[in-house]
Amino acid sequence: MGRAHSNAWSQANKFFELPRPIALHTVAARDAEALVPFARRWGWAQATTDWRTLVDEHEVELVDVATSNDAHQAPALALLAAGKHVACEKPLAGTLADARTMRDAARKAKKRGLQTFVWFNYRRCPALALAWELVREGKLGRIHHVRATYLQSWGGPDTPLLWRFKKAAAGSGAHGDLNAHIVDLARFLTGDEIVEVHGAVARTFVTQRTIPGTKKKGRSDVDDAVLFLASFAGGAVASFEASRVASGRLNSNVIELNGAKGSLRFDFESMNELWFHDATLPPRTAGWRRIVATSTAGKHPYASNWWPDAHGLGYEHGFVNMAADIALALAGRKPVVPLPDFEDAYETQRVLEAALRSARERASVKLSDVR
Amino acid sequence: MGRAHSNAWSQANKFFELPRPIALHTVAARDAEALVPFARRWGWAQATTDWRTLVDEHEVELVDVATSNDAHQAPALALLAAGKHVACEKPLAGTLADARTMRDAARKAKKRGLQTFVWFNYRRCPALALAWELVREGKLGRIHHVRATYLQSWGGPDTPLLWRFKKAAAGSGAHGDLNAHIVDLARFLTGDEIVEVHGAVARTFVTQRTIPGTKKKGRSDVDDAVLFLASFAGGAVASFEASRVASGRLNSNVIELNGAKGSLRFDFESMNELWFHDATLPPRTAGWRRIVATSTAGKHPYASNWWPDAHGLGYEHGFVNMAADIALALAGRKPVVPLPDFEDAYETQRVLEAALRSARERASVKLSDVR
Amino acid sequence: MGRAHSNAWSQANKFFELPRPIALHTVAARDAEALVPFARRWGWAQATTDWRTLVDEHEVELVDVATSNDAHQAPALALLAAGKHVACEKPLAGTLADARTMRDAARKAKKRGLQTFVWFNYRRCPALALAWELVREGKLGRIHHVRATYLQSWGGPDTPLLWRFKKAAAGSGAHGDLNAHIVDLARFLTGDEIVEVHGAVARTFVTQRTIPGTKKKGRSDVDDAVLFLASFAGGAVASFEASRVASGRLNSNVIELNGAKGSLRFDFESMNELWFHDATLPPRTAGWRRIVATSTAGKHPYASNWWPDAHGLGYEHGFVNMAADIALALAGRKPVVPLPDFEDAYETQRVLEAALRSARERASVKLSDVR
Amino acid sequence: MGRAHSNAWSQANKFFELPRPIALHTVAARDAEALVPFARRWGWAQATTDWRTLVDEHEVELVDVATSNDAHQAPALALLAAGKHVACEKPLAGTLADARTMRDAARKAKKRGLQTFVWFNYRRCPALALAWELVREGKLGRIHHVRATYLQSWGGPDTPLLWRFKKAAAGSGAHGDLNAHIVDLARFLTGDEIVEVHGAVARTFVTQRTIPGTKKKGRSDVDDAVLFLASFAGGAVASFEASRVASGRLNSNVIELNGAKGSLRFDFESMNELWFHDATLPPRTAGWRRIVATSTAGKHPYASNWWPDAHGLGYEHGFVNMAADIALALAGRKPVVPLPDFEDAYETQRVLEAALRSARERASVKLSDVR
Repeated sequence: MGRAHSNAWSQANKFFELPRPIALHTVAARDAEALVPFARRWGWAQATTDWRTLVDEHEVELVDVATSNDAHQAPALALLAAGKHVACEKPLAGTLADARTMRDAARKAKKRGLQTFVWFNYRRCPALALAWELVREGKLGRIHHVRATYLQSWGGPDTPLLWRFKKAAAGSGAHGDLNAHIVDLARFLTGDEIVEVHGAVARTFVTQRTIPGTKKKGRSDVDDAVLFLASFAGGAVASFEASRVASGRLNSNVIELNGAKGSLRFDFESMNELWFHDATLPPRTAGWRRIVATSTAGKHPYASNWWPDAHGLGYEHGFVNMAADIALALAGRKPVVPLPDFEDAYETQRVLEAALRSARERASVKLSDVR
Repeated sequence: MGRAHSNAWSQANKFFELPRPIALHTVAARDAEALVPFARRWGWAQATTDWRTLVDEHEVELVDVATSNDAHQAPALALLAAGKHVACEKPLAGTLADARTMRDAARKAKKRGLQTFVWFNYRRCPALALAWELVREGKLGRIHHVRATYLQSWGGPDTPLLWRFKKAAAGSGAHGDLNAHIVDLARFLTGDEIVEVHGAVARTFVTQRTIPGTKKKGRSDVDDAVLFLASFAGGAVASFEASRVASGRLNSNVIELNGAKGSLRFDFESMNELWFHDATLPPRTAGWRRIVATSTAGKHPYASNWWPDAHGLGYEHGFVNMAADIALALAGRKPVVPLPDFEDAYETQRVLEAALRSARERASVKLSDVR
Repeated sequence: MGRAHSNAWSQANKFFELPRPIALHTVAARDAEALVPFARRWGWAQATTDWRTLVDEHEVELVDVATSNDAHQAPALALLAAGKHVACEKPLAGTLADARTMRDAARKAKKRGLQTFVWFNYRRCPALALAWELVREGKLGRIHHVRATYLQSWGGPDTPLLWRFKKAAAGSGAHGDLNAHIVDLARFLTGDEIVEVHGAVARTFVTQRTIPGTKKKGRSDVDDAVLFLASFAGGAVASFEASRVASGRLNSNVIELNGAKGSLRFDFESMNELWFHDATLPPRTAGWRRIVATSTAGKHPYASNWWPDAHGLGYEHGFVNMAADIALALAGRKPVVPLPDFEDAYETQRVLEAALRSARERASVKLSDVR
Repeated sequence: MGRAHSNAWSQANKFFELPRPIALHTVAARDAEALVPFARRWGWAQATTDWRTLVDEHEVELVDVATSNDAHQAPALALLAAGKHVACEKPLAGTLADARTMRDAARKAKKRGLQTFVWFNYRRCPALALAWELVREGKLGRIHHVRATYLQSWGGPDTPLLWRFKKAAAGSGAHGDLNAHIVDLARFLTGDEIVEVHGAVARTFVTQRTIPGTKKKGRSDVDDAVLFLASFAGGAVASFEASRVASGRLNSNVIELNGAKGSLRFDFESMNELWFHDATLPPRTAGWRRIVATSTAGKHPYASNWWPDAHGLGYEHGFVNMAADIALALAGRKPVVPLPDFEDAYETQRVLEAALRSARERASVKLSDVR
């Protein structure tokens, strides 16, 4: 993640007309040996093994926290208290309690003019930013269905017992990693909030994995897959599914919305395409339409910052687009599409928590009961 | 349905080498006026407005019951008692109680050599018959995921208050009509049984519809959409969704299975294709493979009965293939893929009932509690 | 082809409201042994091994000639002379000279009220009939490009030396078989005529094939592939390609038209889909649109004769639709889309001839020089 | 192009372990005003309005010529003479004569250890680099067919009379711009050379365009589309088509190869996918396979330099990958896939010339006659 973030801050200067240029001031990481070459390669002016030195660094306006989930809270609270804007990797925290503390701190800091951001990078994949615009314009009408799956397949029995497969270190498995993204996308696109989880199931298919460097097996105690059903305040029903053992699905972040007036569909494996069905057209020629979502002629979000019409962007561009939008936001300008802050990310975390609780209790869970 | 069934019985003689030819003896229907031209057009030798006359018709060996769901039970019981084989439209019955009575009758009749059949026609769509074979051969290994949706979009607010939208007449909405198909397919393909429903949500989006022939509105009280999560005895987790308001989805009967060794995917809107991912291949060239499933060179199920290599079949061919398989079964031969009988269809009905109960009770439901 | 035609005449009665029912009077074929069971199976009232008996059969109004290409001319001429309407398999004849004679005979017969038909069945594949309508309505504007390929792959080196691989018996290889279809489709869809062939190449990749029933090799002297470029009177440029050795392409009859206002694309391997791009829409949401072309709600051609909305048709339905259209035409009514007669098929044959001449002479060929 | 090249040189340092880091020494361009901010933004240490100053700049080892086609020759010759390595935008030159001079100069310079490069960037799109590897490994066997189209749609009648539409300035239209790419790709992938052009057609559909800044019309005299047929030394037949008026095709650089053992297909609009058909598999489960070509698990070319498994790359990555490969080549190491030099690009230019000559002469043209 350090590479993706460093690249984003650096490239934003080149491809966007920013109000103020972004300076890569200091990079902090624990591994002293790797730190210096990393800083040199990515253009960081300074490097430190102790993030706390950033607290008192007057020149630094924003700190980007890209540590593991359980280590977001401490720097975020300290830096907000020290008057820094804070960006944070997703999900907001390893636990709902941590997330709530961070949300509360962000609320207070906001009154002092500080902003927070969470790297839900897919919002700025151009096809999804376009989807957001189309929903805003009423192209879908009242939304009936949200159908979201984030499926991967690298978690088969041959994959060793990495830290990601141990609850103590990772918090959860596919759920926190992948469902976090699609819950954020569902909320982002619909602009609506989930009010109830109608059932959930979590499953660990591979319980024994080889301990790296040994021939012994150890126990994996995180979920390989979590599915849940939900409904939104506006009445839409939704399904969410995350898996690391969905054979054939490599990075299949798919979301579909069906509304009374139209539908949208996106698959990150074909990330430059957005599928749109306009149900207000006559049925004779209506059909799912493949929009190449990087069209300058189409005035697609972020398209003019990059290459000629329909020339294709990649994974990293979501991060660069977000870095540029953060720079806009810090200068008091409006980002192209809304930026998630801690408050927003806390709502996503509540949904994830409700799903886990529903799976555990084998019953529906109202979001009003999850705080 | 009368057309699809009549065509099936008639075409099976032409495209299959049957042990004995199928004779279209008598058609029964309530509408006396429409009956005679229907019988003439489709080649029925006789016609009657009273199905009870079939009970004593010695020449008739099999009766095909294609009435509305609530009217399956009476003829099925009477005809089995009279020593006829009985085929029945899906779902087996309008209520679980009816379905159970029919299952019990079929069990008894089986001892007397009588066979029952339920028209889950999609099993004999060539791509799905091929899918069944591939699962049998172990191409998927242990199955982790079943993901099934049957989405249509004709149920928008402009659609009038047809009988299908009234519970008294139709039993349920999308659930009995569409989820019935995909629950059967999931059971058929996996060869496994659902043991628990982990949550469900039913939704009526359009509650007021125009009463046909009037300008007044009346109340629609059936579901427009039902979603539920389930798990199989073998450990797979599954999601099912049926909708009549999924804008852009016309007849989108989609099922995907992910197993440890491979995956399969089918969409009825592209019914002659089966997508297969072989996870035992090296990752470098692995990928979803589009099998054109009507290949004679590929020895695909039913292909040799129809047209040259890869020349495409349609909706009706599932019915014709099934009629031919029924003829084989009555002659003591093995059908190409398993035929669902009342016993089998009753299991599907239990799952549908469990889903409704789960939605109502807002809790998980074990199948062992649904009888 | 006997099966496809017999099925078409029989099914047309069932699925269409015809002005007069079609009676299957007599089937003629050389193989006396196979003839009787064939006639019984497909419902022919009589059978004969000599087609000449049909000449004097007063009850017969139309004769359908489905013999090999070199054997079309003799019966067609005799039957037209005897006052029968004649339908003929495609291509019209084995040679341009034969085709011209048949065209001339059809012209004369037309004055006596006789009609001729050629089985270019793909015109009545619903998606292509819809494409025809959309072009007629001006949805494409001035057409710039026609891109047509008919690719198969059964002609690899393992395929034995069937009669199809010998010029004396088959006339040509992929060219007459496959390019005939796509040249007809290009002319049908555009409503325009080809005026020049700008170059062509014919290739026999597999020159030695095993003689069936032996271990010896014999020489294949027909083309495995023929490609040519052409231009239309209206200015469009076109490419055509037929191959039997295009590995991975099973029955890939693909045609795309690009016009100033829009584009259309069809692939027979996904025969129930038509892709449409409406270039008059704003670029922001423009894109190729997948129309499910068997929609009753969409009032798609032939859809109301078959199954519920978007339930999928197959290869044979083009034939049934054509049989019904012929019955309409004989009753003086207008077919759903234009029926190709001998005159029309002769124009296609001229294009095929021009392509062969261009390949031979290694130069452009004007159609005005091919008569 | 200046942006794409500058970005490439800069990013290569970050994402690749290069033998020596790339230093962005001097940027040269005619527009003095734009030059300084450009240099600052993209990290060039110096800027000049006269490329000739580079000739004597001892620190500069490589010069990258990204001017318009007619302005490649002069700097290339001067810089090679001055002992610099030279990279050049594609096509190599505006005329075959220029290209030949450059090729000759490169031959001579090679003896002095100088290398030349031409920016056929698509070779390093990961999916096409993977395609190259698969062909090399014999996965396709003897190649029968090459089918390549590069279709765009921005050249409609509303597009004004830019310099690109005037022959004097642009040399040619779609041909030099787009066919150049796909001829290079066809030669790169097959490793084979074209020996004959079997016919060609060039067409200008829009002859009158609005002169920018006026309401007057002026004449466009370049081709909007050029199609040609060709054959390779190894026997494969090929078709090429470039268009700027193919409505619905935005940046549709598509190439398909069919061989005796398998087939490959690529479409730049879905640039992270490679379609592969393995004809050595049993027909029962054979089919086109969608390989997500950015898989680290799959050890796909360049994948390990970028993001996690299957996370998607964009247009610019082909340039960055090429910059890195050039750096490898200058250090005497082997690039991941072959780099095109002037010699190689000259062969592509000969094919383009042969196509134009074939269109003009309305006859086949042997490549041995084009020097």
